[in-house]
Amino acid sequence: MWLPPEPLKSIGKKQTRERVARLRLRLLRQQHELRERDFPVLVVFGGVDGAGKHETVNRLNAWLDPRFLCTLAYGEPSQEEAERPRMWRYWRDLPVRGQIGLVLSGWYSQPLVEYARHRSDATRFAHQLRQIKDFERMLTDDGALIIKFWMHLSARQQHRRLTELAEDPMSLWQIKPRDWEHLHLYDRFVGAAEQLLDATHCRNAPWHCIDGSAEGLRALIAAERLSDALARRLKARPAPRGRKLRPARGQGLAQADLEQRLTREKYADRLAVAQARLLRLQQTSLHSGRATLLVFEGWDAAGKGGAIRRLVQPLDARLYSLHPIAAPNDEERARHYLWRFWRRLPRAGHLCVFDRSWYGRVLVERVEGYASKAQWQRAYAEINAFEEALTESGIRLLKFWIHISQQEQLARFQAREGDPLKSWKLTEEDWRNRHKWEDYEAAVEDMLAHTHRPMAPWVVIPGNDKRLARVSVLEAACRTMAGH
Amino acid sequence: MWLPPEPLKSIGKKQTRERVARLRLRLLRQQHELRERDFPVLVVFGGVDGAGKHETVNRLNAWLDPRFLCTLAYGEPSQEEAERPRMWRYWRDLPVRGQIGLVLSGWYSQPLVEYARHRSDATRFAHQLRQIKDFERMLTDDGALIIKFWMHLSARQQHRRLTELAEDPMSLWQIKPRDWEHLHLYDRFVGAAEQLLDATHCRNAPWHCIDGSAEGLRALIAAERLSDALARRLKARPAPRGRKLRPARGQGLAQADLEQRLTREKYADRLAVAQARLLRLQQTSLHSGRATLLVFEGWDAAGKGGAIRRLVQPLDARLYSLHPIAAPNDEERARHYLWRFWRRLPRAGHLCVFDRSWYGRVLVERVEGYASKAQWQRAYAEINAFEEALTESGIRLLKFWIHISQQEQLARFQAREGDPLKSWKLTEEDWRNRHKWEDYEAAVEDMLAHTHRPMAPWVVIPGNDKRLARVSVLEAACRTMAGH
Repeated sequence: MWLPPEPLKSIGKKQTRERVARLRLRLLRQQHELRERDFPVLVVFGGVDGAGKHETVNRLNAWLDPRFLCTLAYGEPSQEEAERPRMWRYWRDLPVRGQIGLVLSGWYSQPLVEYARHRSDATRFAHQLRQIKDFERMLTDDGALIIKFWMHLSARQQHRRLTELAEDPMSLWQIKPRDWEHLHLYDRFVGAAEQLLDATHCRNAPWHCIDGSAEGLRALIAAERLSDALARRLKARPAPRGRKLRPARGQGLAQADLEQRLTREKYADRLAVAQARLLRLQQTSLHSGRATLLVFEGWDAAGKGGAIRRLVQPLDARLYSLHPIAAPNDEERARHYLWRFWRRLPRAGHLCVFDRSWYGRVLVERVEGYASKAQWQRAYAEINAFEEALTESGIRLLKFWIHISQQEQLARFQAREGDPLKSWKLTEEDWRNRHKWEDYEAAVEDMLAHTHRPMAPWVVIPGNDKRLARVSVLEAACRTMAGH
Repeated sequence: MWLPPEPLKSIGKKQTRERVARLRLRLLRQQHELRERDFPVLVVFGGVDGAGKHETVNRLNAWLDPRFLCTLAYGEPSQEEAERPRMWRYWRDLPVRGQIGLVLSGWYSQPLVEYARHRSDATRFAHQLRQIKDFERMLTDDGALIIKFWMHLSARQQHRRLTELAEDPMSLWQIKPRDWEHLHLYDRFVGAAEQLLDATHCRNAPWHCIDGSAEGLRALIAAERLSDALARRLKARPAPRGRKLRPARGQGLAQADLEQRLTREKYADRLAVAQARLLRLQQTSLHSGRATLLVFEGWDAAGKGGAIRRLVQPLDARLYSLHPIAAPNDEERARHYLWRFWRRLPRAGHLCVFDRSWYGRVLVERVEGYASKAQWQRAYAEINAFEEALTESGIRLLKFWIHISQQEQLARFQAREGDPLKSWKLTEEDWRNRHKWEDYEAAVEDMLAHTHRPMAPWVVIPGNDKRLARVSVLEAACRTMAGH
C-alpha cells in the first residue's frame, strides 16, 4: 500500500534553516564527488498537481552547482518528437555521466494522464509501465542512479492547494483547466498512480512518497532522500548484472548457401526491377508516414558498402540518411551506449541505413573485451527492448548479416591489397579480426539466436557472390517496406 | 557574364574510363590526407532542374570513401526547423573537420526559388544573398574549403531533359509539378541565378558552372574540379584573415555606477513586481511565438548565477532552458566555434539563457591566447552576423555584462574562501584571471564597443550591490520581452 505517504510534522524555522545548511553542504560535496564518477543521476518527479514538484526542482537548482545539473521538463511533443518513438525525447536529453538531471512531467506523465482520463486502457497502461521499467533498468544496469519522488496530496488538500495557486498571480500559470478536471478524477488518478508506483518501484529505481502538504518541508525531505541515495551510491558501485542467456533458436549462419551464383544478365534485370520497386515503396512510405530502418552487419569485406550504394542509388537524397558507425565520440561515450543510435532515428516516412550498428556491443565489443561479460550478456535484452520501441512506434526494421566464407574473405583482402582504388579499405585491424574468426562466428550465432524476432528479423545474405548479395538485400528491403 | 557555361565536348568511352580511374585514385588519396587536417569541405550543388546534381552526388558517393563523406539534402523545413532562424538547419548539419559534405537543395535553394516565383522581392533576395555570403565567409575564414557547382541547361535542353526524366519510372520522382512551372519561368529563374552567382562568387567559395547537358561527363568534370580545389587547399593553408577594427562607440564600463545601493525592502518590492511581470510576458511570448535569448557575461564572482536564478524562478520549466557554457567537447571542437551555440537556439516562444556565451571568443580566448589575433578580431563581425540572423528570425536578444569593481571581487573571493557552501565556486583559475584584470578590461571594452547594436544591445549592470543587480537584470529582461 503506497498512498497516502506518512504526513510530515512541521519543525521550527531555526531548525529548518540548520538542516538546509547541513544538507546543502553535503549535496555540494556529493555533487563534486559525482563529477569524477562515471554514472549519471536522474531525479524523477511525479505526483498530484500542486504538491510541490516545481518548487522542489527550483530549490534543488538553488542548492546545487548549476553547472552540473540540468532540468528536463516536457510539454506536448513537438512534430519532430511525435514522429519518433515515445521515449525518443527522453533518450535525447539524458544527462552525461557525472551530472544530475531533474525530470519534470517526464516519461510517467503521459501514460498516467491518458489512463486516468480514459484515453487508454488497462492493457496499454500496463504495457507502457513495463516499457518504462525496461528503460530505467537499462540505465541503472549501465550504472545510472535513478531516484523517483511521488509528491502527494489528499483530495481535500489538493482542492485547497489549487485554489491557493489560482489566487496568486505568480503561480496561476501552474494551473491548467485540465487540473480542475483531474480533481474530479482524483480517485481514478490515485488508483492509477498506485498501480504505477507498484509496477515501477524497484531496488535500483525506487519511488519515495512525499507528503506534499508540508510546504516548508517537502523540498527539504526530498533533497535529503536524494542525498542519502547519493551517499550510498558513491560508496559502493553495485555489482554488474548480467542476464542468463536461454538457448534460443533463430536464424543461423548455416542457412546461407554460399555456393549460389547470379549471372550478369539476371543480376541486371533483378536489380532494375528491385530498384524501381524500392523507389515506389519509398514514395508510399512517405505518404503513410512509416519509417524504415535497415541495419547492415557482416564480415569485413563482405560487401556492405556496395550493397548499400545500390540500395540508395535510386532514392531521393532528402528522404534517406546513411549512418556509418565508427567508435563513439566523447559526447556519446558519456552516455548509455544506445544513446547515439536513439539520436539518429529517422523521421516519419524516411529511410535510415546503419552501416554497422548497436550490434557492435555483442560483436566487436564482446570479442575484443571492450564490454564486460555482464554488459554484453544483458545487451541482447536491451537491444530487443530498444527495437521493440522502434517497431511499436511504426518503424519497419530489418537487419542484414552479409555472410562470406573465410576463404572468400582472404581472396578479397588480397585483391584489395593489390588494387590502389581499394587498398585504403584494408587495415591492420582487418587482418587481426580475421584471426579471431571463430570468436566472431560464435558471437554472430549468439546474436542471431537472441535477437531474431518476428518484428525485427535478421536476414542472412549469402555474400560470396556480390551480385547475388546486392539483389538479395534490395529484394528483402522491398518486402519489408511493402509490409510483408 | 556567367551563363551559359562552356559546352563540354564528349570524349570516348575508353578515355572516360581512364580519366575516372585516375580521378578516383586521386580523390581517395586526397580524402585520406584531408582526414588528418583540421578543416571541413563543403561541396554545394545548385542549378537548373534535371542538370545532373543528383547524379553527380551519387557518383561522388560511389567514388569516395563513404565513411568520411555525408550528403546533406533539404526539403521543406520541419516545424522545429521553421521555428528557428533560416540558417539553423544548415549550421546543425555542418560536417566536422576532415570530412566532406555534399549539399543538395541547400541554403541557395529557397531564396532563389522564392524570388523566381515572385514570392520575395529584389531587396529581400539581395539581403539573403548577402547573409549567405557572410555565412560562407565565416566558414572559410575558419578554414573550411567551399566549392560550388552550378549545373546548367538551356531552356530547350531543360525541356527535353524533364520529358526524359518523366518518361522513366526510375527518375519520375525527380520531377515535381513545380519543375514544369519553373520551365515557364526559365528566363526569370536564370536571371536570378546570374545575380546569385555574381553576388556569392568569391575566391574562397567559388562557383563553377558545368554544362549539364553532357550526361556522361558532367559528374566527372565536377569531381575533377573538386579534386583540383582539394589539391590546392591541401598544399597551402590560406593566410589567416583578420578584420580591421574601426573605432566604435557603444556601451562602456564607465557608465555603470557601482556606488548605487538598494535597500532590502525596495528590493523585495521591485523583485516581486518584476517577477510577476516576467511571468506574464513569458505567457504572451509563448502565444506570439517570439523567443527570447538572454546572454550573461561578467567578472568572476559578479553574481551571474544568482541573477539567473531569480530570473527563472517563477517560470514554467518547460518554457525555458539554461545553458552554462564551459569548454567545448570534441564534437563541438570539430566544428566552427559558433556551431555549439546554433544547436542550442530556442524554439518559438521559449526563453533561453546563456551563462557565458560565444563572447568567450573575444574575452577568455583572446586574453589567454586560445584564439589568434586574426581569429578574435574577425569574431566581432562574425558575432554581429550571427546575432543579426537571430533577431531577424524574431528572437529578442539582450546581453548582460555584470560589472563589479576589482575591490568588490577581492572581497567576494575572500568571502567564498571562508564559506564552505561557496568555496567550490572559487578556483585557482579565478585568481589567475584576476591578475589579468587590465587585459580583460580592455577586451570587455572592445566587445561592448563592437557588438552593441540596436537589435542586440548590451546592458552593463552595476553589480557591487547584488540586490540592485538582480532587480536590474529582471527589469531589463522585462523591457526586452515587452518589445521596448
